[in-house]
Amino acid sequence: MSTDLHRHPHFISLEGGEGAGKTTALNAIRQALEAHGHRVLLTREPGGTPLAERIRALVLTPDPEIAAEPLSAEAELLLVFAGRAQHVRQVVQPALAQGTYVLSDRFTDSSYAYQGGGRGLDPTFIAELERRTVGLQPGLTLLLDVDVAVGRARASGRGEGPDRIEREQDDFFQRVRNVFRQRAAGEPERFRVIDASQDQAGVAAQVVAAIDAYLTKEGGNG
Amino acid sequence: MSTDLHRHPHFISLEGGEGAGKTTALNAIRQALEAHGHRVLLTREPGGTPLAERIRALVLTPDPEIAAEPLSAEAELLLVFAGRAQHVRQVVQPALAQGTYVLSDRFTDSSYAYQGGGRGLDPTFIAELERRTVGLQPGLTLLLDVDVAVGRARASGRGEGPDRIEREQDDFFQRVRNVFRQRAAGEPERFRVIDASQDQAGVAAQVVAAIDAYLTKEGGNG
Repeated sequence: MSTDLHRHPHFISLEGGEGAGKTTALNAIRQALEAHGHRVLLTREPGGTPLAERIRALVLTPDPEIAAEPLSAEAELLLVFAGRAQHVRQVVQPALAQGTYVLSDRFTDSSYAYQGGGRGLDPTFIAELERRTVGLQPGLTLLLDVDVAVGRARASGRGEGPDRIEREQDDFFQRVRNVFRQRAAGEPERFRVIDASQDQAGVAAQVVAAIDAYLTKEGGNG
Repeated sequence: MSTDLHRHPHFISLEGGEGAGKTTALNAIRQALEAHGHRVLLTREPGGTPLAERIRALVLTPDPEIAAEPLSAEAELLLVFAGRAQHVRQVVQPALAQGTYVLSDRFTDSSYAYQGGGRGLDPTFIAELERRTVGLQPGLTLLLDVDVAVGRARASGRGEGPDRIEREQDDFFQRVRNVFRQRAAGEPERFRVIDASQDQAGVAAQVVAAIDAYLTKEGGNG
């Protein structure tokens, strides 16, 4: 069982609240990496493996037989980390070992934001779970940051109904945003904050610039 | 989020390896408690709530779509604790609050034995999960102890096929047994070790004697 946390330069995560424009940004990141000649694996959390997708469904879209059972914050946290343990071992690490860039739609920072900030669970416990069961951090994390009300207005315009977490109230998402921003401020060498109040083209341009700068900094990898 | 561990005198767990005779013992314990005039809720782990039973299935009896995915020891541990967090909050605590005796077929000691001893995960991490997400210990734990080979021979005579953990090898179950016995030796005030090499009547008699002694010691509760 690992108790350390290693950053891998080819592992990139995208984080952000509701309606921040993650889908547009993911496509832009992927294209920017591929334009530099890199293979890219696009994956997501919660999920990323068949088992982890089952866990995702338990957390986000429980079927009628279990939807009436309140999910405790602690169980939500442990389920998300169980899926992450699978995701890292089955998908992320093997792809990195083959020289592929891995781009994950959310990763551990989301647990600090949603289960830590949103649900109020102790971040020192989340850090312990991260060290003990994940052991891996992205070399680069792009945070799509946007005012909560603006993001939620955008998200509500989408076709699909809200999942279990999207049904939370504004103060929940304000705490989520605060933790994301605090983490970005605390680890400036890993995070790039993207102004997601701009339109899709503006967000994509910022994302591509961040990727280009990161690959240039990585030197021989760029 | 609790960081302490409280024992509740009306919470009783039954632990033991494969083929130790848990079903017979559960019935004997229940009858002994009811004979003293107590209401008894019989429950089990992994499981005990609709959501936790889903988690149990992911761990023990994965369907063909996910059975090919190796389950990491870390994910197994987190899944079991996620189910336990639900079980404690949805079932165990509410029943105890109503004065009911709760009898659980396995509880946290099984995580120390199977994921700690069997899988080799660090018991200090398991203890952290226990404090952070469970917070509750049984007042009495009956450990059905039997030689691994004897237990496995009994278990293989049952109708149902082995689940994911039952397919492990003898050395796995030897480590499981060792941890159970170490825990019993370390917490003699909570554990009663039952010689499960005896026949069903002999095991039942020992179990009933242990319950009678426990209720007498509990005094006004007996």
